[in-house]
Amino acid sequence: MEHTAKNTVIGFIGTGIMGNSMAGHLLGAGFPLHVYSRTKSKAEELLSRGAVWHESPASLAEQSNVIITMVGFPSDVEEIYLGDSGIINHAKPHSYLIDMTTSSPSLAQRIEKAAAEKGLFSLDAPVSGGDVGAREAKLSIMVGGLLETFDAMLPILNIMGSNVVYQGSAGAGQYTKMCNQIAIASNMMGVCEALAYAQKAGLDPNTVLKSIESGAAGSRSLSGLAPRIINGDYAPGFYVKHFIKDMNIALQSAKEMNLDLPSLSLARSLYERLVEMGEEDSGTQALFKVINRHSSS
Amino acid sequence: MEHTAKNTVIGFIGTGIMGNSMAGHLLGAGFPLHVYSRTKSKAEELLSRGAVWHESPASLAEQSNVIITMVGFPSDVEEIYLGDSGIINHAKPHSYLIDMTTSSPSLAQRIEKAAAEKGLFSLDAPVSGGDVGAREAKLSIMVGGLLETFDAMLPILNIMGSNVVYQGSAGAGQYTKMCNQIAIASNMMGVCEALAYAQKAGLDPNTVLKSIESGAAGSRSLSGLAPRIINGDYAPGFYVKHFIKDMNIALQSAKEMNLDLPSLSLARSLYERLVEMGEEDSGTQALFKVINRHSSS
Repeated sequence: MEHTAKNTVIGFIGTGIMGNSMAGHLLGAGFPLHVYSRTKSKAEELLSRGAVWHESPASLAEQSNVIITMVGFPSDVEEIYLGDSGIINHAKPHSYLIDMTTSSPSLAQRIEKAAAEKGLFSLDAPVSGGDVGAREAKLSIMVGGLLETFDAMLPILNIMGSNVVYQGSAGAGQYTKMCNQIAIASNMMGVCEALAYAQKAGLDPNTVLKSIESGAAGSRSLSGLAPRIINGDYAPGFYVKHFIKDMNIALQSAKEMNLDLPSLSLARSLYERLVEMGEEDSGTQALFKVINRHSSS
Repeated sequence: MEHTAKNTVIGFIGTGIMGNSMAGHLLGAGFPLHVYSRTKSKAEELLSRGAVWHESPASLAEQSNVIITMVGFPSDVEEIYLGDSGIINHAKPHSYLIDMTTSSPSLAQRIEKAAAEKGLFSLDAPVSGGDVGAREAKLSIMVGGLLETFDAMLPILNIMGSNVVYQGSAGAGQYTKMCNQIAIASNMMGVCEALAYAQKAGLDPNTVLKSIESGAAGSRSLSGLAPRIINGDYAPGFYVKHFIKDMNIALQSAKEMNLDLPSLSLARSLYERLVEMGEEDSGTQALFKVINRHSSS
């Protein structure tokens, strides 16, 4: 069955900053939208545009054909999918379940197994691109699960993202998202150390960027976040506390695969120091404060 | 005095892969060119195009108005500039000295001081852009020294580079190049760890790149070197042994400034392990082999 706005009810769980924009695009595309969120006020805008409110994930699941989740932590994902009053116990047969939360690959595999036993189809489909990507429907969406399930859901995923890529079996979406976070974590250390060094050496960091950002040291973090650091702007594009969550997932899954990631381990320890400094609600670029503190003069 | 091809003899010391291309552009611009290199055969092409060979830096210095050096290690720079039969003891008064080797900031400061005492003008002007940047005259050149000296030499530097930036007083060029290397070192760890994780997770790394290289994890190293790693291509764009030299300079200068760089320290230790594996003549992307070895299954 092709999933069009005419025959598909979408249930969306988790209408935070990201989820709100993503669900809004589905509503805009004409899909009947049912929503649940831990904090109802965060769904108000969607409700005013015609979305239907539910008091529980179970109630939402019972009335949807496609259920999309965008929540916080793996523990939330686990409860919402696998809990007694969770999605899998309450979804209609043949429903599609798409978890877009950044969560653990092994949990995604457990969800798929539990879903399949009930005749449900599931995908793990975490995103990158942040609040701006969500707002502009330009997310990168990394998808794991059965290829047929991916094909069936692609038209819906394309409404929220501009780079929707099938990565393999259940968990592959989450594994891919972890690759993304692993690359970012070390690069952020490099950007912060380069800036701390520049400052200590008495250089003008903006002039340094003119020399280095278009060359081999060039990166999205260097061009996007170094200017914020230079301006003392530590407002969150991406929260420190969420980045630590992701690094924990990556390190746990790496451990399960017998893979040692020394640089990611170092990054996590430096970010934990940042939390001790009271910066968990800052943006990830605040790592600069830890590096700079290493300076002893 | 404006330095044009009509009134300026350029002496170029160090005609390796980089120096050969750089000196070739100066010759092409019409400057009388004198050359010295440790291995004469590496200068043959320039000699065949009309460059004048010298048997020693001293002899070259005595006949040049502008002396450019592009050699290997800080110890080479020190000897060529400050040794008894070095440039500073033999250059004509009012000569200009430009060291384009990646070398130590404090050595650049010592050279400037010694040069000034003899009425000579000096710049530290290391480059990035590699062999391709040198060949295409598209180097990024980061310059430290007196602003008037920079202004006088800018027309000559512009013949070799497309992004020539004045960074500040003596040593500032080297400090800036270190910022570049510091940013690259950590990013390389992130790229290698992300790829090792992808491989362990059974993902197709090329498909992973499709998801992550245009987003927040995007970088020149990810787009440029990850594909080589995936193809098992460890040929040197930039040698491991030279990168270690640069990291040593960066860490030494950071220490002099009381700045601790934990991520760069980790990168150096991993690259040292790579040398123990016999990979010092591989390209920097060979770091993947160390990360992959950390895997114990």
